[in-house]
Amino acid sequence: MPNTSTKRKAAVLVAGSWGTALAYVLACNHFEVVMWTRTEAQAKEISTQHHNEKYLPNRVLPPNITATTNMEEALNGAELTLFAAPSSAMRDVARAATPYVEANSIVVHATKGFEPESLKRMSVVLAEELGRPEAEIAVISGPSHAEEVILKLPTTVVVASQSVDVAEKAQEAFMNTAFRVYTNNDVIGIEISGALKNIIALAAGLINGLQLGDNAKAALLTRGLAEISRLGVAMGANPLTFIGLAGVGDLVVTATSQHSRNWRAGYMLADGTPLAVVLDRMGMVVEGVKTTRAAYELAQQYGIEMPITEQLYGVLFNDQPLDRSIEALMGRMKTNEMNS
Amino acid sequence: MPNTSTKRKAAVLVAGSWGTALAYVLACNHFEVVMWTRTEAQAKEISTQHHNEKYLPNRVLPPNITATTNMEEALNGAELTLFAAPSSAMRDVARAATPYVEANSIVVHATKGFEPESLKRMSVVLAEELGRPEAEIAVISGPSHAEEVILKLPTTVVVASQSVDVAEKAQEAFMNTAFRVYTNNDVIGIEISGALKNIIALAAGLINGLQLGDNAKAALLTRGLAEISRLGVAMGANPLTFIGLAGVGDLVVTATSQHSRNWRAGYMLADGTPLAVVLDRMGMVVEGVKTTRAAYELAQQYGIEMPITEQLYGVLFNDQPLDRSIEALMGRMKTNEMNS
Repeated sequence: MPNTSTKRKAAVLVAGSWGTALAYVLACNHFEVVMWTRTEAQAKEISTQHHNEKYLPNRVLPPNITATTNMEEALNGAELTLFAAPSSAMRDVARAATPYVEANSIVVHATKGFEPESLKRMSVVLAEELGRPEAEIAVISGPSHAEEVILKLPTTVVVASQSVDVAEKAQEAFMNTAFRVYTNNDVIGIEISGALKNIIALAAGLINGLQLGDNAKAALLTRGLAEISRLGVAMGANPLTFIGLAGVGDLVVTATSQHSRNWRAGYMLADGTPLAVVLDRMGMVVEGVKTTRAAYELAQQYGIEMPITEQLYGVLFNDQPLDRSIEALMGRMKTNEMNS
Repeated sequence: MPNTSTKRKAAVLVAGSWGTALAYVLACNHFEVVMWTRTEAQAKEISTQHHNEKYLPNRVLPPNITATTNMEEALNGAELTLFAAPSSAMRDVARAATPYVEANSIVVHATKGFEPESLKRMSVVLAEELGRPEAEIAVISGPSHAEEVILKLPTTVVVASQSVDVAEKAQEAFMNTAFRVYTNNDVIGIEISGALKNIIALAAGLINGLQLGDNAKAALLTRGLAEISRLGVAMGANPLTFIGLAGVGDLVVTATSQHSRNWRAGYMLADGTPLAVVLDRMGMVVEGVKTTRAAYELAQQYGIEMPITEQLYGVLFNDQPLDRSIEALMGRMKTNEMNS
């Protein structure tokens, strides 16, 4: 039961699309939400004009969402602290936040990707920087385009933490009639599936750009899900997580929707536009590109066969021709479905 | 290795969209294909004009596909017999075929649904009528719109049989560079997932018609997959089948593609068009409608909770208002993802 007698405060770092959409959900649930951003102009835009035009165009934010560039102001008194920085910036943001995060604040993150170079999961990065046990950190994930959440269209997500208490507190904070929150305890699986599905979304954009049809895309999604599950399980995930909301659910929404940045980037690559040009045109982080490199390296570390990731890696980083990749995937030996 | 010295013959019963597309695959693999249909005009159209205009408009069939209304002519000498009748007609077609099916012919079916009333799986119906052990019957399934197969767009499917020999013979007959065939031994799982995904596809059409967004649709697909897996496992299926090509793969393609009849029927229902009118306008069998009733009954028989199927059953057969169904699904108690 929410406490309505005193105002509850939540902090959200940083003010990208997904962070802003989750800030909106918390604001609908009567939190006073303070967002932290590096950019003075963005902080001002959110606090005074109630817009975040670059990341959520044409949407008005409620007055109980404000933003600041002052970390202490954002975090002071927040009973929930949500980290939604890009994976490459997470450590810096967490380091800057550490002195001000309230000791009893519930820490949740909403970032899909691994730390570059170290290939660490986001909850590991947060635990290291905040000096908290990993078990007390939660992750929120699932099929949830920010653009739809802010229209209050029905959305379902998962909050995972090794601590049932933390997961249930986060569930209570976010859940409402338009935003259904399930709990789960498989943090590793939720983080890995959230990160790796972006690889398949990129490849799905490619398939669509090449006009290979719905049958090919469904095959890609299915075989892609199989290979990211194999890696996830090797890394300690529960296999069932991959058929849940943060697995197949998020994969489907990311790979079949026009809202998805990873899908759009893949689509643009299909006509031969070089990767650097595509990334420049997107203007926002495309997590799937870095994640393809990360998964390629992890697959080698763990000795897992990931044919789709391998082909995409070749296309993105080794100028491999697209038709050779398709041929390589379709032309594999006759096999039983349950083998890799 | 295909035998190219003498002409190999395959029989396909009947000449709907999917049967014709699979006949096309066999014809590409140098089979002489004879289709059986009840309709003299359709047989003539296929044999002499090389068209099947009602079921695969604007496509030319190769000359090594012919059709007949004479069962003996169709089946005589066929080393592969493919049954692709609608589920409600399967027993009648099989009964008519029985005297003429070659004893050593590989029997494969491609039908997604249960027999009405008895709720029997298609391979059970075939085994009963043909007097063969169930173990010797194969099923072909997967994400495969007929309209794309006939354009030679990349497609992947599964052939399942309890007999490895039968599965591999069927794999060898159908596989080519555009049509990749995996084997599997879980006939029950492949048949159940193929049938039940049509329920979710119908519901997905409804979600799209109601403009509830991509998040809601991904939630429906994920939670739908969970509930059809629960029923499947209770009926003896391997849970892994549901995350394979005939499970999640076929679910995705059926629920997200404009080619899907079940999706289109759901979409039309969204604006309040009565079921009878929708079915009349479709002009072809919409397996998902009958399957919703079948699954509703099977869920009760097996004591399985299937909230999406239940709500769709109410909408289709009990005039339940759509908004009440959505509310019922979103408003369920806070729960852990791994519970039903």
